Amino acid sequence: MSGPVALICGEGRFPLVAAKAAQQGGREVFLLALKGVADPGVENFPHVWLGVGQLGAALREIERAGAKKLCFIGGLGRPEFADLRPDWGAIRRIPEILRLLKGGDDHALKGVIKLFEQEGLEVIGVESLAPQLVAAKGAMNRLALPKNFAEDLDFGRACLSAMSAFDVGQGLVLNHRRIVALEAAEGTDAMLERVAHLRDIGRWRAKPPSGFLIKAPKQGQDLRVDLPAIGPKTIAAAKKAGLCGVAVEAGKVLVLDRDEVAAQAEAAGLFFYGF
Amino acid sequence: MSGPVALICGEGRFPLVAAKAAQQGGREVFLLALKGVADPGVENFPHVWLGVGQLGAALREIERAGAKKLCFIGGLGRPEFADLRPDWGAIRRIPEILRLLKGGDDHALKGVIKLFEQEGLEVIGVESLAPQLVAAKGAMNRLALPKNFAEDLDFGRACLSAMSAFDVGQGLVLNHRRIVALEAAEGTDAMLERVAHLRDIGRWRAKPPSGFLIKAPKQGQDLRVDLPAIGPKTIAAAKKAGLCGVAVEAGKVLVLDRDEVAAQAEAAGLFFYGF
Repeated sequence: MSGPVALICGEGRFPLVAAKAAQQGGREVFLLALKGVADPGVENFPHVWLGVGQLGAALREIERAGAKKLCFIGGLGRPEFADLRPDWGAIRRIPEILRLLKGGDDHALKGVIKLFEQEGLEVIGVESLAPQLVAAKGAMNRLALPKNFAEDLDFGRACLSAMSAFDVGQGLVLNHRRIVALEAAEGTDAMLERVAHLRDIGRWRAKPPSGFLIKAPKQGQDLRVDLPAIGPKTIAAAKKAGLCGVAVEAGKVLVLDRDEVAAQAEAAGLFFYGF
Repeated sequence: MSGPVALICGEGRFPLVAAKAAQQGGREVFLLALKGVADPGVENFPHVWLGVGQLGAALREIERAGAKKLCFIGGLGRPEFADLRPDWGAIRRIPEILRLLKGGDDHALKGVIKLFEQEGLEVIGVESLAPQLVAAKGAMNRLALPKNFAEDLDFGRACLSAMSAFDVGQGLVLNHRRIVALEAAEGTDAMLERVAHLRDIGRWRAKPPSGFLIKAPKQGQDLRVDLPAIGPKTIAAAKKAGLCGVAVEAGKVLVLDRDEVAAQAEAAGLFFYGF
């Protein structure tokens, strides 16, 4: 008996789907639902509600549940220190936490992992908790790839990789080696809305469907905390942006749920590919 | 007598200001105003109206005016081939033009220069036509730089420089080494609107004023055609985005007009710096 896996649950339905998938895979779960952030559906699982700043309480609950493994799932936004309402367990660690909150997201997340590891917990990635929720390798639906796909994919991946050094950029949209949009703090869906707008105002005039989204984790990003994710909203936004497809890094991008998203993309005329 | 300088005039008031500044500097000008693009104010100068695709006519008019030097000024957007309505002089060069329209903006612009150079014209940059319209080195107003300025400037410039290899990125917004927004096809002003929005929705929560805009030409960009530009709209957008300043590459970013923009920035509480 290794006890349950503790899931620290951020926004959206990802945590619920992951929890369910883990159970279906025969693992016991214990959900730490972040107040004001996590979906109320957490209450269908063994759970406890906690404030983002209640680090001390979180550690006590994890210990009480007998969990040795911990998995972060679901976005958190980027909390301001003032919103954290730290408990004593957090206050004790304020110097570390302040250090963590400087720099890019990735830097902060690595710090959060370290904080839990220092308490003797093993932090695992959701891809080991529920492998069926990450992108597969190769074509995930039946649509043909565009002629320029391989070249554009190489070009776009190289650009994302160059941006990684600056702790930014999990996504971009390009067409024939022209980069139309680069993702920073706005997130993928907002970037895709921008692309739709650039088309509406005639600032990007390639005839739709054309161009595709590439999404991958930043290099050096700690995949145990925040795999980038796509879901039905992303596909709908890509369709609205007039794209011809979506390419994501296999095994390193959450897809909720994989079969459903692949089928939805196909119905929308979008290829869906894992590289 | 070297004859007038031919100015190919794109959008906005930049071409007019540059033409006036060149005249004040004792140079004769001849404006080739692009139909549907250039400001009607071109009619205050010796000029002719031409369609974007009328390359043959442009070359004839330049010759008739006795101009040996040519300067491109003002944005053009990115014309679709269908909008170009080529004349015979352009049709003759279609294979070259098609080659030019592939790849990023920079690639296309270099090709346009070559097209004119092949006709024996010297293509000059606006900074040699009207030096008072480009950013100066150092502080351009009296506001203090933020504490983290030097470090953030180095970080942001390195990021822009890495993006240059992908023919993208003339601007970004960052704060304490966190890159909040990266500019691609949307342009600087739209990027700044996005930053304002990210603040409104709480996705970027650093207390304003904070963060600054860095703007520079892409490395390897041909500065004879398209210096990046900022003006009163950029400053107003930076203010609205809650930034604390604007840093631009000295000598390589058009500022219309420099003293006015510097003063406007100061009044808005924004430092204005040339690196």
